[in-house]
Amino acid sequence: MAKYIDFWFDFASTYSYLAALRIEPLATTRNVKVNWRPFLLGPVFTAMGWNDSPFNIYPSKGRYMWRDMERLCQHYRLPLKKPSKFPRNGLRPARIICANHDAVWIPDFVRAVFTAGFAADQDIGEREVVAGLLGTLGLDAEALIADAEGPEGKHLLRRQTEEAFKLDIFGAPTFIVNGEIFWGNDRLQQALAWADGIRD
Amino acid sequence: MAKYIDFWFDFASTYSYLAALRIEPLATTRNVKVNWRPFLLGPVFTAMGWNDSPFNIYPSKGRYMWRDMERLCQHYRLPLKKPSKFPRNGLRPARIICANHDAVWIPDFVRAVFTAGFAADQDIGEREVVAGLLGTLGLDAEALIADAEGPEGKHLLRRQTEEAFKLDIFGAPTFIVNGEIFWGNDRLQQALAWADGIRD
Repeated sequence: MAKYIDFWFDFASTYSYLAALRIEPLATTRNVKVNWRPFLLGPVFTAMGWNDSPFNIYPSKGRYMWRDMERLCQHYRLPLKKPSKFPRNGLRPARIICANHDAVWIPDFVRAVFTAGFAADQDIGEREVVAGLLGTLGLDAEALIADAEGPEGKHLLRRQTEEAFKLDIFGAPTFIVNGEIFWGNDRLQQALAWADGIRD
Repeated sequence: MAKYIDFWFDFASTYSYLAALRIEPLATTRNVKVNWRPFLLGPVFTAMGWNDSPFNIYPSKGRYMWRDMERLCQHYRLPLKKPSKFPRNGLRPARIICANHDAVWIPDFVRAVFTAGFAADQDIGEREVVAGLLGTLGLDAEALIADAEGPEGKHLLRRQTEEAFKLDIFGAPTFIVNGEIFWGNDRLQQALAWADGIRD
């Protein structure tokens, strides 16, 4: 039986950065395939009555989150530079992934976007930034960006975000394994164990 | 140097139940003393604009939390019976602890209250339930309850909840080690390692 995990993330999400950078070697160890599923937290938060990141709406939660990220990044040996603006807009790279979800370069592109956002304080919402990241991977940035911003690219991300609602997703990262929901970077290893048939 | 951890919890909090039942053997291994600090989440949530548990206000978060609790309790080999009413009112047992914070029976009483609430679906807000738990520990329930409900007992819990605000606590359980905040049962082991001088 094929083993796989659906990895739902938003490029603006701090804890999604941790999960995105960690997931591939951990999944490989368990022989689990990762399905990279970007979506937009914005509409999900709007439905919960929030017009901004909860880390901005609730200042004590926000202060804690940044300190927690510092400690976790040190633990995982991941770079972290607090973005000068938070949250960033992850719409553009998310559309590119939806329009190319089977491409072999998707994992590298996901990591490049998260790293630009959370280790280099780049604005991942900017066309030139995204074009630069695609170019570094040797890809035809102009063609990919134009394609992702056509009606089909827009439609695919909108549909994926609607699917997140249907799946009862309320935050990111979220891992789904055979209908079982795991929320947060803290649940990555439990979710992968579940995908590997371990129920403990 | 004495090693200790401040363990802030609310008897109504599901993830506090997990931490309360797990903390003592883990702390003993690291030679860390546990300071049991009950407080009331209610005023904290009110200040955040919530008039109920966020697990009730946001149904998708609530559905997830109960499933997550099921999986975690299975993992930790802890019993779980979803309370017929959630959240319960933890005021009465919290006052008893504040009025007797140095007593040797505090850890047993904390575990007894949490177990009554989350493994036996008892109403821990009820005087008779709390009296029964104290009696099982061989204590003078009537005297302890009367004492905790006097002006001094009420004052102590109010002051402790005010202290939680000052410490920037926004949820439970919260662990504080030398001013460093760790939120959630998921951070228990990291917080204890910190108390043990390990910064990784």
